[in-house]
Amino acid sequence: MNLHHQEADLGIPNVTATLADWVVNLQGADIPPEVRREGLRTFVNWVGCAVGGADHEAADHALKAFAPFSGPKVSTVLGREDMLDPAHAALVNGITSHVLDYDDTHLKTILHPAGPVASALLALAETRPVSGADFLTALVAGVEVECRIANSVSPEHYDRGWHITGTAGVFGGAAAVGRMIGLNAQQMRWALGLAASQSSGLREMFGTMTKSFHPGIAARNGLMSALLAEAGFDSSERAIEAPRGFAQVMSDKQDWGEIIDGLGTRWESATNSYKPFACGIVIHPAIDGCIQLRDELGEDKVAQIASVKLRTHPLVLELTGRKSPKTELEGKFSVYHCASVALLRGDGAPTAFTDEIVNDPQVVALRGLIEAETNPDCHEASVDIEVTLRDGSTHTKHVERAIGSAEVPLTDAQLNTKFTDQAELVVGTTVTQRLRDIAWSLESLSDVGEVARASVRGKG
Amino acid sequence: MNLHHQEADLGIPNVTATLADWVVNLQGADIPPEVRREGLRTFVNWVGCAVGGADHEAADHALKAFAPFSGPKVSTVLGREDMLDPAHAALVNGITSHVLDYDDTHLKTILHPAGPVASALLALAETRPVSGADFLTALVAGVEVECRIANSVSPEHYDRGWHITGTAGVFGGAAAVGRMIGLNAQQMRWALGLAASQSSGLREMFGTMTKSFHPGIAARNGLMSALLAEAGFDSSERAIEAPRGFAQVMSDKQDWGEIIDGLGTRWESATNSYKPFACGIVIHPAIDGCIQLRDELGEDKVAQIASVKLRTHPLVLELTGRKSPKTELEGKFSVYHCASVALLRGDGAPTAFTDEIVNDPQVVALRGLIEAETNPDCHEASVDIEVTLRDGSTHTKHVERAIGSAEVPLTDAQLNTKFTDQAELVVGTTVTQRLRDIAWSLESLSDVGEVARASVRGKG
Repeated sequence: MNLHHQEADLGIPNVTATLADWVVNLQGADIPPEVRREGLRTFVNWVGCAVGGADHEAADHALKAFAPFSGPKVSTVLGREDMLDPAHAALVNGITSHVLDYDDTHLKTILHPAGPVASALLALAETRPVSGADFLTALVAGVEVECRIANSVSPEHYDRGWHITGTAGVFGGAAAVGRMIGLNAQQMRWALGLAASQSSGLREMFGTMTKSFHPGIAARNGLMSALLAEAGFDSSERAIEAPRGFAQVMSDKQDWGEIIDGLGTRWESATNSYKPFACGIVIHPAIDGCIQLRDELGEDKVAQIASVKLRTHPLVLELTGRKSPKTELEGKFSVYHCASVALLRGDGAPTAFTDEIVNDPQVVALRGLIEAETNPDCHEASVDIEVTLRDGSTHTKHVERAIGSAEVPLTDAQLNTKFTDQAELVVGTTVTQRLRDIAWSLESLSDVGEVARASVRGKG
Repeated sequence: MNLHHQEADLGIPNVTATLADWVVNLQGADIPPEVRREGLRTFVNWVGCAVGGADHEAADHALKAFAPFSGPKVSTVLGREDMLDPAHAALVNGITSHVLDYDDTHLKTILHPAGPVASALLALAETRPVSGADFLTALVAGVEVECRIANSVSPEHYDRGWHITGTAGVFGGAAAVGRMIGLNAQQMRWALGLAASQSSGLREMFGTMTKSFHPGIAARNGLMSALLAEAGFDSSERAIEAPRGFAQVMSDKQDWGEIIDGLGTRWESATNSYKPFACGIVIHPAIDGCIQLRDELGEDKVAQIASVKLRTHPLVLELTGRKSPKTELEGKFSVYHCASVALLRGDGAPTAFTDEIVNDPQVVALRGLIEAETNPDCHEASVDIEVTLRDGSTHTKHVERAIGSAEVPLTDAQLNTKFTDQAELVVGTTVTQRLRDIAWSLESLSDVGEVARASVRGKG
């Protein structure tokens, strides 16, 4: 028997209550226009990713297991004919929006904010109609909550092995839905408590479908945390900060100020970024540089490459040093594959990571000519590339900050291209264009469910 | 960005694969009769507890939130008219079986084994019929898995703040259901991987409804882990032992031998125990001793008590030192209330913890006459009690090992009394007696769903 007493927790601020009060009282007008604009970009990017991943086999398998247990099918699986109850739709949309590793990133914590939040909100909005303006307020609140909680335990929490998109994301889903349905302050604390007790997701799952399961369950569990609290199911009111609460159990670091300081003035949600390439963010500088080199050299000279040398941040090789990938997922963990495909095809989209492309003889051949070495002085968003052609000439590229980094955010036009390129493959041109336009018009919609319905080919 | 490399994991045995293989290959005949018998007692006790807790408000609130999202209602909420899909029924039955703090206990880890396992199995068995013999084999497998995994990380894991019934329980649910539906070895590893990534539940929730939510979600999530694996949703195949897996992320201790040594010869599931009183196990010696004293003194002398002195294990006061409880839940965390009610009414059942009894003037008055002091040399299952009457006479009681401890297990007759006393309050005498008989006849049933159906008043 191992019951031990609770440690003293004098001096810890009431983090959960403060955060809950802020979310409950947040009004749309409290959010500066540029923050709302970034929230809108977060939403549009999420819609494109959810549709882009809709035909992934992970979604097929999840639907096979969950659909028989679905309640009344009122919510849309984005980009598919399938309908599910709101909880299951939240789960599957959370999976598809992440499964291509193409979603958004809160760079400070590498949390992917939209999946756990937008998936929960939109699925419920199909049965409890809400205006686009209110939806966006709830989305910003949810992203703010999850990113702040993530900040408070980073990087120790992630380093310990937690997939922060799952573990912190569930708070975002709970807070967002709680705001959307109008929980009171006590209910919001309970919702955060119920979220804390469902916080889960291990990094060991990276490279398997279970990685994308994490934002899915964060969305569903966050949604249900809010609905349980609404129904009177009680919980701790200090689940984040208590001695046996989230932050102290799941991290060796707790910075309470990251959660409660500057609420309403410092906006973490405004720092969200959007992946230009469908893989882990550490390889993005290499892909960016290789695409630029390809554009400068032209296809003919790319065909003459004798060797490629990459000098990268050390994490690149630690995380993505796989020399001979065989599958889509392994390709995403190979900087060699990524550089090869970027040079040969100028591609870093999901099309660069199909099993077929990963095993393409030309891609494999060039991959074998690529060497990588680490440079501890290299910034994580930088890379140096040196290409030597068969004629002995060398061509170099220094990327100071890769596209998609904090310094070089994707433009709206680039977001649109990303949206279109991936969604068209799944639902075709007509649905994609209409859906994209409706998603951008979020704040003028009287019923957000319109976005979900517009994502489906048959209804487009 | 905080991506770090995986630590070396040389020398760690393939714990997940070994355990999965064992479960997949386990046959009913491999389980010794006395182990099966303890599995049957585990099942019977769980049925009684689930029915006993069926009318708790936690169940009402959970149903209010979840029922609108239920799929086809083929599975029974034990002891209620409500039906739900198997996943939701598993969840609610997991809640009700734990909500009175009256269920079973694996004393070595204080995990409550039946909730996460039996709730998942029985709910699914109503839609995928299975014989009682096969059901019992799956139940023993699931309990074995969760208790072994719990052992491997105890006590550090619980000390860190994890509610082990949730965190280890989910593996039990996954393994049990996986065995019942015949997963192959790879699917079973995936199921354990999906379970690992849903492992959650914080001790901060003790004293709230969210505590009993933990076995509920462990049951539902374990069930769905098995069904997802069956549907082809893949996961890590070494989720327990990997550097970023369950044991290394969620505990500072890992003892792999506790998981894989003596599989099939050492049976943790046979060490399960059943609570004689509806509260935390640390108070049980005090209740046991007070009931014995009451029996010896008689009611008249109890009414003459001037003071009571308890000498207990230090944990008793650390965990249950609440002097002035006001509610059911607070009463369970007050050794003073427990002792008072045991002396006055001879009661430690759920009836001893209603809000009414906790505030009963007589109970409150005697509570004020009780002092407790700790004795570091006192065994956790022992207590010394000294009662002084108004005439100055003293009466003492030494409990060497309390009822329900490893040394003094509940007899079948005591299990029956416990079952009857709590179930009758919810479903009446007729249903209770029939249900109890059917539960004991588990191994002869051709369709286990019969137990679930027999639990409901309308069908009894």
